[in-house]
Amino acid sequence: MAIWRVLWAVCAGLSVSSQAHAQTQTPADAAPAEDIVIGSRVLADFGVLDGFGHVSARDPKNPNRFLMSRSLAPALVTADDIMEFDLDGNAVDPRGRSVFLERFIHSEIYKARPDVMSVVHTHSPGVIPFGVSQVPLRAMFHNAAFLAAGSPVWDIRKDFGETDMLVSDPSRGKSLAQTLGDKPVVLMRGHGDVTVGPSVKMAVFRAYYTDVNARLQSQALALGGDLNYLTPGEGAKADAINFAVIDRIWGLWKMRVAATLGKSAAPGK
Amino acid sequence: MAIWRVLWAVCAGLSVSSQAHAQTQTPADAAPAEDIVIGSRVLADFGVLDGFGHVSARDPKNPNRFLMSRSLAPALVTADDIMEFDLDGNAVDPRGRSVFLERFIHSEIYKARPDVMSVVHTHSPGVIPFGVSQVPLRAMFHNAAFLAAGSPVWDIRKDFGETDMLVSDPSRGKSLAQTLGDKPVVLMRGHGDVTVGPSVKMAVFRAYYTDVNARLQSQALALGGDLNYLTPGEGAKADAINFAVIDRIWGLWKMRVAATLGKSAAPGK
Amino acid sequence: MAIWRVLWAVCAGLSVSSQAHAQTQTPADAAPAEDIVIGSRVLADFGVLDGFGHVSARDPKNPNRFLMSRSLAPALVTADDIMEFDLDGNAVDPRGRSVFLERFIHSEIYKARPDVMSVVHTHSPGVIPFGVSQVPLRAMFHNAAFLAAGSPVWDIRKDFGETDMLVSDPSRGKSLAQTLGDKPVVLMRGHGDVTVGPSVKMAVFRAYYTDVNARLQSQALALGGDLNYLTPGEGAKADAINFAVIDRIWGLWKMRVAATLGKSAAPGK
Amino acid sequence: MAIWRVLWAVCAGLSVSSQAHAQTQTPADAAPAEDIVIGSRVLADFGVLDGFGHVSARDPKNPNRFLMSRSLAPALVTADDIMEFDLDGNAVDPRGRSVFLERFIHSEIYKARPDVMSVVHTHSPGVIPFGVSQVPLRAMFHNAAFLAAGSPVWDIRKDFGETDMLVSDPSRGKSLAQTLGDKPVVLMRGHGDVTVGPSVKMAVFRAYYTDVNARLQSQALALGGDLNYLTPGEGAKADAINFAVIDRIWGLWKMRVAATLGKSAAPGK
Repeated sequence: MAIWRVLWAVCAGLSVSSQAHAQTQTPADAAPAEDIVIGSRVLADFGVLDGFGHVSARDPKNPNRFLMSRSLAPALVTADDIMEFDLDGNAVDPRGRSVFLERFIHSEIYKARPDVMSVVHTHSPGVIPFGVSQVPLRAMFHNAAFLAAGSPVWDIRKDFGETDMLVSDPSRGKSLAQTLGDKPVVLMRGHGDVTVGPSVKMAVFRAYYTDVNARLQSQALALGGDLNYLTPGEGAKADAINFAVIDRIWGLWKMRVAATLGKSAAPGK
Repeated sequence: MAIWRVLWAVCAGLSVSSQAHAQTQTPADAAPAEDIVIGSRVLADFGVLDGFGHVSARDPKNPNRFLMSRSLAPALVTADDIMEFDLDGNAVDPRGRSVFLERFIHSEIYKARPDVMSVVHTHSPGVIPFGVSQVPLRAMFHNAAFLAAGSPVWDIRKDFGETDMLVSDPSRGKSLAQTLGDKPVVLMRGHGDVTVGPSVKMAVFRAYYTDVNARLQSQALALGGDLNYLTPGEGAKADAINFAVIDRIWGLWKMRVAATLGKSAAPGK
Repeated sequence: MAIWRVLWAVCAGLSVSSQAHAQTQTPADAAPAEDIVIGSRVLADFGVLDGFGHVSARDPKNPNRFLMSRSLAPALVTADDIMEFDLDGNAVDPRGRSVFLERFIHSEIYKARPDVMSVVHTHSPGVIPFGVSQVPLRAMFHNAAFLAAGSPVWDIRKDFGETDMLVSDPSRGKSLAQTLGDKPVVLMRGHGDVTVGPSVKMAVFRAYYTDVNARLQSQALALGGDLNYLTPGEGAKADAINFAVIDRIWGLWKMRVAATLGKSAAPGK
Repeated sequence: MAIWRVLWAVCAGLSVSSQAHAQTQTPADAAPAEDIVIGSRVLADFGVLDGFGHVSARDPKNPNRFLMSRSLAPALVTADDIMEFDLDGNAVDPRGRSVFLERFIHSEIYKARPDVMSVVHTHSPGVIPFGVSQVPLRAMFHNAAFLAAGSPVWDIRKDFGETDMLVSDPSRGKSLAQTLGDKPVVLMRGHGDVTVGPSVKMAVFRAYYTDVNARLQSQALALGGDLNYLTPGEGAKADAINFAVIDRIWGLWKMRVAATLGKSAAPGK
């Protein structure tokens, strides 16, 4: 799967350098923060996220830091809610804000995967059945081509026994990151999934199409008989196209959530 | 299942005491009435409720009374529609308002379960198939962890023969409450389900995630093969987290229905 | 199934007499016309109707006439679009307006069933699979209790060979009415379904819950194993309740479509 | 299948001659451009298209040219975005605008099928499972009657081995057009589908009902047992009716997207 790493390193590099020119704000870079807001809201709008789940981005100025909202429903996230964390999951400047219990999903993946610039965690309704089932999630079509690389399932019970199911400490995050390996997605039994990518756009794109693909595969399996999934070779080639056309759908999603940005004030803030 | 009772007693106690400070209105306490309005509307908005079904709350000032809307579609309920009932299902101050035929679902559960502070009855489209089927509803993920305690099915035909299917008198309500036992949810064959909780927020949360879980389990069963449901031990631990994070999703739901509150005048009032 | 006839005769009688006082307009009575508009729009809003299908009402002043929109997508119907027809399907005062090809569904059912005051024809997406399948549609829950009386399937090919599938003349309408018999619903193979009732409200209620029930039954069958459908005895008792509570959901539906009534001007009118 | 060709030649001829009178603008004729906008937006609104896919029309003034949007999400297309292409897929007057990689789907079908006046390419979620499965898509009801003529599946791997799945050159487009043959629809394994017709309205109608039909067939197959699909004879007769009533649903769709036309400015334009 070295091709993922190479592609991502290239794209992540481009992404960092092109964003570097626009950086004038501290502590959070404006562009990833804006993309976190757009990604959180569009995934909520599509029902991939409900009141829970989160989108993060590695800090383009400091690879040992990442950006993530304070604890808040994703549909309500604004740029002002973005906080900065180190790779142990500690808030750099907490100012009394509450943080997500499961920030260790993000910190441990950023630690293990230098190529990853963004992490998305969802309770995607399409995907949850595949995390509970023995049937592997496979690539149904080119927009979900990244699934052709494989979609491992992490069962928290294997390393930690009977738990509250949450990735609420670094050891659980590390175990999850190990199961993710060099793949773009990992399913979490009885919980949801995590997608990663070389930019917020790609990690969000993958969260969306992982959900779509899971629903399509469920429908296809219900038809009965053998299915012609994308081969790994097709998957690698088709995913490169997804990188190239991401801005077409991102532009649409940006417009889709633009109308909701006025309603950004979170309750009890 | 004693852990539910303990947790709920604690939470119900906290809930009552924190609400006690805000109580200035009679006959209905403002906070539960507001939560009944929000819960009714958000469940209608999600399609868990349609034109029928109801949300109630035990009166925090008087455990022998409960609050419930006059007979009205849940999407239209306002605080002004909330009436008070005794535990025999009699309206305390009817003033000619029409009441729900099935208020005995609520009165008999409040009688049998001192720990319960709220009851929700729905015709949840996700759940109805499980009430008609022999396949038990089981916990697919942590947000529906409360289902790991079991989800009994009440068949009205068992005690009452061929009926109109409604819980329209105290004896039917009592039979239903007996099947519920100490669980957080009971399915009703050919009808719907009832969820209970230590607060309106938790009973509504459970009504929502019972519906979501049922849809996810249907999809997972269609994939074929064995499924890794949450174990009872995982369920108990994970549900404690749901108590802790309820306000994150409740805040979102409150904003979701806020826009509809202007359209609150019920027809023919 | 004589119980349906008795109940409907009673309700139809009540309906006619209560509406009689309000009749001042000609040629169409205001109340059924308004209910046709509400029913057409709410079924379109729920996706039970798309660009096709129609709702009609027997003229409360003249049992040998019925009211129906000119040929128009149901979401766009206004009271001004309602025309009057005789029981041979002829427009009483056409004034050059285009009429539905399938008005004979309605005319022949009004001829065969004096108890029927309203007819709804849809291409309900939930129901079409049952018209094509050998699996009978059965009552899953009390709101669809009327299905416990049975749901015959009409196959146009049986009497007419290979056709364009449409009920576009009186002989096809008569054949359909014969298959309907004394039931509240008939499925049409490769086409859709027809529901009837003692009022527009009840025929629309049945069209809606036939669609909901079909989806629920599909989900329940997918779970595998035996299903506990409503018995005919339960169905008859529960349907009587549906008559009693129809205004609760009708009031909700009326509010739901009220916002769309401003957009009533049909294109090219 | 000669009947399709005859019908389409007639309709296409009528369409061209009636539009010819209205032609005053260059380079693109106003009527097909307007229908491309409506079709793109309504298919996006129904979820048949997401951020990808495209609607084209043969130029009514020049059968060797076709009209298609610049590279843009279909929900954002305006008449100003329509460009003209020759049958080799070259933009006639590019002016620096980016074009769709997959325009060869359109160019090669217009070359191979003189009767075709419009082509729609989607990633229809209902249809993708059938492109991956061995189960043929068949006509469930009269609105999808055109499927009774057959729905071939094109597997890009057969002629081209492991690719990026895209129809990004003329040879791939030609191979796809050969599999389409004289049918109204072709499925693309791991990708989506293409529908064609004698007008934009009909090609869009077919894209919509291909998606609806696929979902209905999935549901019907899940019920188990034999299914009574439309016969080819029924399909041919019923599809002729769809031509006759297309304006009823097109008028509805036009109103549906009218509200979105104000939001037509594409991002980054």
